Amino acid sequence: MKIKNKFYRTIWFENNSVKIIDQTKLPHQFIIKDLKNVKDAVNAIKFMEVRGAPLIGATAAYGLVLSIIEKNDLSFLKKSSEDLIASRPTAINLKWAVDRMMKKLLAKNDKEILNIALNEAKNIVEEDIKFCESIGKYGLKIIEEISNKKKDTVNILTHCNAGWLATIDWGTATSPIYQAHQKGIKVHVWVDETRPRNQGANLTSYELNEEGVPNTVITDNAGGILMQRGQVDMCIVGTDRTLSNGDVCNKIGTYLKALAAKDNNIPFYVTLPSSTIDWSIKDRNRIPIEERNSEELSHVEGIDENNTFKKIRIYPHNSKSLNLAFDVTPAKYITSLITEKGICEASEKGLKNLFK
Amino acid sequence: MKIKNKFYRTIWFENNSVKIIDQTKLPHQFIIKDLKNVKDAVNAIKFMEVRGAPLIGATAAYGLVLSIIEKNDLSFLKKSSEDLIASRPTAINLKWAVDRMMKKLLAKNDKEILNIALNEAKNIVEEDIKFCESIGKYGLKIIEEISNKKKDTVNILTHCNAGWLATIDWGTATSPIYQAHQKGIKVHVWVDETRPRNQGANLTSYELNEEGVPNTVITDNAGGILMQRGQVDMCIVGTDRTLSNGDVCNKIGTYLKALAAKDNNIPFYVTLPSSTIDWSIKDRNRIPIEERNSEELSHVEGIDENNTFKKIRIYPHNSKSLNLAFDVTPAKYITSLITEKGICEASEKGLKNLFK
Repeated sequence: MKIKNKFYRTIWFENNSVKIIDQTKLPHQFIIKDLKNVKDAVNAIKFMEVRGAPLIGATAAYGLVLSIIEKNDLSFLKKSSEDLIASRPTAINLKWAVDRMMKKLLAKNDKEILNIALNEAKNIVEEDIKFCESIGKYGLKIIEEISNKKKDTVNILTHCNAGWLATIDWGTATSPIYQAHQKGIKVHVWVDETRPRNQGANLTSYELNEEGVPNTVITDNAGGILMQRGQVDMCIVGTDRTLSNGDVCNKIGTYLKALAAKDNNIPFYVTLPSSTIDWSIKDRNRIPIEERNSEELSHVEGIDENNTFKKIRIYPHNSKSLNLAFDVTPAKYITSLITEKGICEASEKGLKNLFK
Repeated sequence: MKIKNKFYRTIWFENNSVKIIDQTKLPHQFIIKDLKNVKDAVNAIKFMEVRGAPLIGATAAYGLVLSIIEKNDLSFLKKSSEDLIASRPTAINLKWAVDRMMKKLLAKNDKEILNIALNEAKNIVEEDIKFCESIGKYGLKIIEEISNKKKDTVNILTHCNAGWLATIDWGTATSPIYQAHQKGIKVHVWVDETRPRNQGANLTSYELNEEGVPNTVITDNAGGILMQRGQVDMCIVGTDRTLSNGDVCNKIGTYLKALAAKDNNIPFYVTLPSSTIDWSIKDRNRIPIEERNSEELSHVEGIDENNTFKKIRIYPHNSKSLNLAFDVTPAKYITSLITEKGICEASEKGLKNLFK
C-alpha cells in the first residue's frame, strides 16, 4: 500500500507501542496514532480508528501484546481478551485472533510470554499480508479473463472498504484489482460511497487514488441502474463473517448489490482470508448484527470552505434513526468465494474442499 | 398537509406570483418563495426548490401563467413551454402538464388567455389533490388488511419523498399512510434517507413528524436486512414515469428495494396519479435518466454546532463521482400499482383496464 508514494502498513509495532493510521480522519487528514495500552486498542476498534475484519483481528492480537506490557498478569490478560472480543460484535476475526493468541499464551510461562505474544501477533500480520496477496492472485485471473473477452476496460463494482486499509496490506476485494492494475490490465472501479460512514468514498476511493487506479464514487443506490445498463462487469466485496454454508455477513447494503448482480447476470465475488470463516454458526439469523450510534446517520463529517474539519447534522432534529452495520448475503447470490487457497463455490462443500 | 399545525399546500397563486416552499432548505429552514416569471419557475424546478413528479407538473403549469403575465406573446409562450419541459428530463409530468396547458392556450385568443391559463393550472392542482386523496383511499385498504391480520403496528418502508411535498397535498405513497394514521391504524414508517439529496430524511421524515406519524430514518443500505428480519410488512413508493407495460422509473435505489422485497415475499406497491403514465415509450432503456451535478454527492448540507447552515465536502478532493437520479423497477417486481382509479396489476392490461 502506498500513501503519498510511501509504502505503509495499516498497523505496526514500534517502541513498545502499536502504531495505526486513524481511519476516522481519512481522507481529510492523515494521522498516525499510538496505541499504548489495551484500552487504547479496544477503543481504536470500537470507534473504528481501525476497521475491516482482518485489521481489527490484528489490532486485537497487538492489543494482547500491549496488555502484557502493561501488566503481566493472567487474570488481566483474560479480561483484556474479553474486552477485545467484545469491542465489536459482528466480525469473527476478533475472536479468531484473540483465541489464536490465547492458545499460545496460556501454554507459556511468565518470562517468555511477551516474546511469544509479539511473535504470534507478527505471525498474524504477516500471514494476513500473504493471504491477501494470494487472494489477489486468484482474483486477478477472473479479471484477466473478462479483460481478454471484453477487450476493453473492466468495470468492477465494490461496496465499503475491503482494501489495504481493512487489512494489513493489499486488501481482500482490492487485491485482485491492484494486481490487475500493476499488470497493465485496464480496470475502472465503481465505488459505493457506503453510508453511513462512507468508507467507500473515504477509504476505498482514497486508496485507489493513491494507487492510481481509475475509480468513480457512486451512491449506494446507484449500482442497480449501472448493472441494468451493462456498465458493471463484476462485483467484488469483502466479508466480516463467512458462514460454513457460504452465507456472507458484510457491510450493510452488500445484499442489495448481490440481488441486483443476480438480476442482471453479473458475477458477484466475495473475497476472504480463512480467518473470517465461522465454522460454528449454521443459521444466518444467529449472527450478531451490530447496531451502532444513530448519530453516524444523522451527522456527517467533512471539510468546510475554510478547509476546516466540521461535523454537521443532516437530519431533522426530531427524527429517529436506526444504524445497523451489516447484512447477510445468502450463498445462492454469490458466484464464488475467493480465498487464499483458491476459488470455491459458496457452500459448505466448497469451503471444506479448501479448508478441511 | 400540516406544517407547525397550519394547513398548507406546496404551491399557490397569489398577487400575480406563484408561491412555493423552498424544499432545498428543509428541514432546517422553512422558507416561502415567490416565483415572479417563467425563468423563476424553470430554475425552481431545475434546482429542486420544487421536486416530485406531480409538483413539478403543477409548477410548469403555473410557469406558463407567469409567462403570459410577463409577455402575452405566442412565440414567448412556446419558448417558455420548451424551457419548462427541458428543466428536468425524467419525470413525464412536466411534459404532460405543459401539453395540457398548451392545448387549451393555443385555442384561445389574446384576451382570454390569462384566465384560461390560470383556470387550467388551478384545475391541474385541484385534480392532483383529488387524485392523491383517492390513491390514499385505495392504499388505505391494503394497510387495513395487513393491520387486521397482524394485529400489531404495520411497518411500511418508503424510498425518497412521494409525500405531500412531492405533490400539492396528501402525497402519493404517503396518502394511504396518512389516511391510515387518521383512522387510528397503528403504522410505523421506515424512511430510506435517499442519497444523494436525502429527500427521505429531509422531506419524508419531516412530513411524517409534522403529521405525528411514527417513523425511523435508515440508510439506503438498510432495507434489505430489515426485510430479511421480517421488520417490513409492505413497501410503498412513488414514480416519476410509469411505462404502459408497468415498468416504473423512480428515484435511484427504488429498484434495489423492489428486489429485496421480492426476495423476502414482501408486497411492493407503486402509487401514481395517471399524469405519470407515459403511454408512448415501450422500452425502459429509452427513458432519459437524469444525470445531475456530482457535487450533490461530494458535498452535503446541514446545520453545524452553532445552528448555522453549512455545506461541507465529504469525499476525497480528487475523487470523481457520478450522480444518476433515477432507476427503473421492472413490472415483475411490483405487486400492484395504486392509482386514483383503483388498484391494478403493473402491466399494460392492468393500466388499460383502468385508463383506456
